[in-house]
Amino acid sequence: MQSYQEMSKEELLQEKAKLEAIYRRFANSGLKLDMSRGKPSAEQLDLSMGMMDVLNSSTDLSCEDGTDCRNYGVLDGIQEAKVLLGDMIECHPDNIIIYGNSSLNIMYDTVSRSMTHGVMGNTPWCKLDKVKFLCPVPGYDRHFTITEYFGIEMINIPMLSTGPDMDMVEELVSRDDTIKAIWCVPKYSNPQGITYSDETVRRFARLKPAAKDFRIYWDNAYGVHHLYDIDQDNLVEILAECKRAGNPDMVYKFCSTSKISFPGSGVAAIAASANNLVEIREQMKVATIGHDKVNQLRHVRFFKDIYGMTEHMRKHANILRPKFEMIIDTFERELDGRGAGSWITPKGGYFIAFEALEGCAKAIVAKAKKAGVTMTPAGAPYPYGKDPHDSTIRIAPTYPTLEDLKIATDVFVTCVKLVSIDKVLESK
Amino acid sequence: MQSYQEMSKEELLQEKAKLEAIYRRFANSGLKLDMSRGKPSAEQLDLSMGMMDVLNSSTDLSCEDGTDCRNYGVLDGIQEAKVLLGDMIECHPDNIIIYGNSSLNIMYDTVSRSMTHGVMGNTPWCKLDKVKFLCPVPGYDRHFTITEYFGIEMINIPMLSTGPDMDMVEELVSRDDTIKAIWCVPKYSNPQGITYSDETVRRFARLKPAAKDFRIYWDNAYGVHHLYDIDQDNLVEILAECKRAGNPDMVYKFCSTSKISFPGSGVAAIAASANNLVEIREQMKVATIGHDKVNQLRHVRFFKDIYGMTEHMRKHANILRPKFEMIIDTFERELDGRGAGSWITPKGGYFIAFEALEGCAKAIVAKAKKAGVTMTPAGAPYPYGKDPHDSTIRIAPTYPTLEDLKIATDVFVTCVKLVSIDKVLESK
Repeated sequence: MQSYQEMSKEELLQEKAKLEAIYRRFANSGLKLDMSRGKPSAEQLDLSMGMMDVLNSSTDLSCEDGTDCRNYGVLDGIQEAKVLLGDMIECHPDNIIIYGNSSLNIMYDTVSRSMTHGVMGNTPWCKLDKVKFLCPVPGYDRHFTITEYFGIEMINIPMLSTGPDMDMVEELVSRDDTIKAIWCVPKYSNPQGITYSDETVRRFARLKPAAKDFRIYWDNAYGVHHLYDIDQDNLVEILAECKRAGNPDMVYKFCSTSKISFPGSGVAAIAASANNLVEIREQMKVATIGHDKVNQLRHVRFFKDIYGMTEHMRKHANILRPKFEMIIDTFERELDGRGAGSWITPKGGYFIAFEALEGCAKAIVAKAKKAGVTMTPAGAPYPYGKDPHDSTIRIAPTYPTLEDLKIATDVFVTCVKLVSIDKVLESK
Repeated sequence: MQSYQEMSKEELLQEKAKLEAIYRRFANSGLKLDMSRGKPSAEQLDLSMGMMDVLNSSTDLSCEDGTDCRNYGVLDGIQEAKVLLGDMIECHPDNIIIYGNSSLNIMYDTVSRSMTHGVMGNTPWCKLDKVKFLCPVPGYDRHFTITEYFGIEMINIPMLSTGPDMDMVEELVSRDDTIKAIWCVPKYSNPQGITYSDETVRRFARLKPAAKDFRIYWDNAYGVHHLYDIDQDNLVEILAECKRAGNPDMVYKFCSTSKISFPGSGVAAIAASANNLVEIREQMKVATIGHDKVNQLRHVRFFKDIYGMTEHMRKHANILRPKFEMIIDTFERELDGRGAGSWITPKGGYFIAFEALEGCAKAIVAKAKKAGVTMTPAGAPYPYGKDPHDSTIRIAPTYPTLEDLKIATDVFVTCVKLVSIDKVLESK
């Protein structure tokens, strides 16, 4: 396919006229589609309805150790839930604390505790003049919202195809002790679907931070969210790698079943070294009497074990795969070789990131909106909502039906072409 | 009955010998009883087992407004849960935010937010040299643990039969702007079972605090936990009273269904003025995507409405009333007029407080322990675990069976008598 850059001004104007006719048809057809939300579809939620049946009024709501899940007690999660989530994130149950329904809330809580109480004996961050976090970009907007809320300065780290630019990470953390953490979505990253390479993980585990209280915030949100059964990305397990590298305390690992069972009604957890867990439990015993054990039990009885969860995730994949493949197919058919942007083909997760020509993301999102297709706001995957190149667009294929998604993708591709042609025309 | 103080040394020694024989029988019978835990009994938990049936795999898990409770969305609680909890705590649903499973966690979170972000535009507490809370004593140990964890200084306020000593509260808050809050359990208080009088509540609402960011932490933990149907305590509703007094923003009200449905698997909420809720939502949208809506729906479908909850609480009362009455009867029969301590007869809540002779609480608790009866540690209802008079003992009648409780109460009364006689003998 000829790229726009190679086409003459006349050819581009001709192409533009054709595309504008297509765009007008879309714009006049009263569409109301949404590719902005990283939510499971109703069809996916239906997969977990059986969870509503596993407990009933004649069920014994006791744990294997005899604890009555209906009453107070058990601060950090029932053992069988630790085993299940441990298998899910490849960690020993002893390294796990089960929380409530939201891993985001655990991250918030972790930052908040570090602000007021510091990390393992170090000065509370609220007593410091300056605290900084490294933010691989594009990344997850809600991570950045937490750091912004606490007045923490964010430093962009470019994402490469192997994960964050580790030369830059190593350089910065080794010389600046105000850098206290880095946000990571290491597997099927939000929004690019990149899985950190083995080398990247090993370099993470071998960091020599200037700050003693430096921590890797490892948000393993999509650890079991594969699209394929065999062709899966593999991520080196970070807790074990940090231990092998002599940095056992350097990482907090977060996870939840939000996009496995029901978002908002799942079970979330943190995994960390024994030293970190001691500190977390110190806070936890002050902050709550315990989390929802009945819901923990409900999850364990529904999934039974990690094989049950794997089979369950296969059903999710069967729903999601056609959506992801349709979008990638459309991109390849319509945009390959056009010089109108690029994309990465993910093997799991919840998003596809489209990398538009520099300065085009906002215009594309606005144009799609005008035609009735809502995209995640351009800039959202960057700290302070500011994409320095105005080029990244996050696409969330999960929530709409496949039919709606097809139309939305066609609209999107049309908008990409139109805005890109305008951009190329500027330089002609 | 003759008081120990009126008895001669000889009479006391005779009485002591008799009691020691009784005590030895208890101590040698291998008892293992527990009156320390403010937990519902298994029989009470059974009352809510129907909650496990209201949702099943063919239930429509949508709210009245059509929201799919299984998915992300709805930050501050589904409307029907706000209505139910609003009726429970006599507040308008618009003044309510539903959280997760723990009201204690909301309180922790509220203190933590005040530390890092301040209260409605005022300086974050972590930037102040000194922050103080008033603590009516005896009170709830976990309140004090939160304030202690954040390094907040605690000032004891004596509890009167009408609630906290309001002369002292008014005096202190009006002249000291480092006093930022007061902890209250205003109805069937923990541990005394006192309900604040109308005058006390009205004086609370009319406080003129030196600190603009002063807040009343109104932990309405036992709002519907009556022992009787007609003979109930009444508490003036604090949000409305603060509004009438021109202090609408001065109070946070906390509640949960922990001792209504299942502790740990209930629904908790905060009620406050619109101004306060704006600030809370600002934090909440950073800290989580939302709480467990399926569990909110489960509660609404189970209780249906406030009448359903009232009828449910009547069943709890039927289980609890004999336990409370047995203890009070035993105290009246064995201790009335003995000059060995005093107690208040509560009409609801979860505790009875026994006020021993000065300097006797620890010894009584230790003596009971030796005979196999665990009481809440003496001192626990005071900040830093320090009861200045060593006299308050919290009794938790709910968890043991009535039979076990009878024996435990007999042991307890025997210990009270023995320690009191020793105390009186000292001065003979």
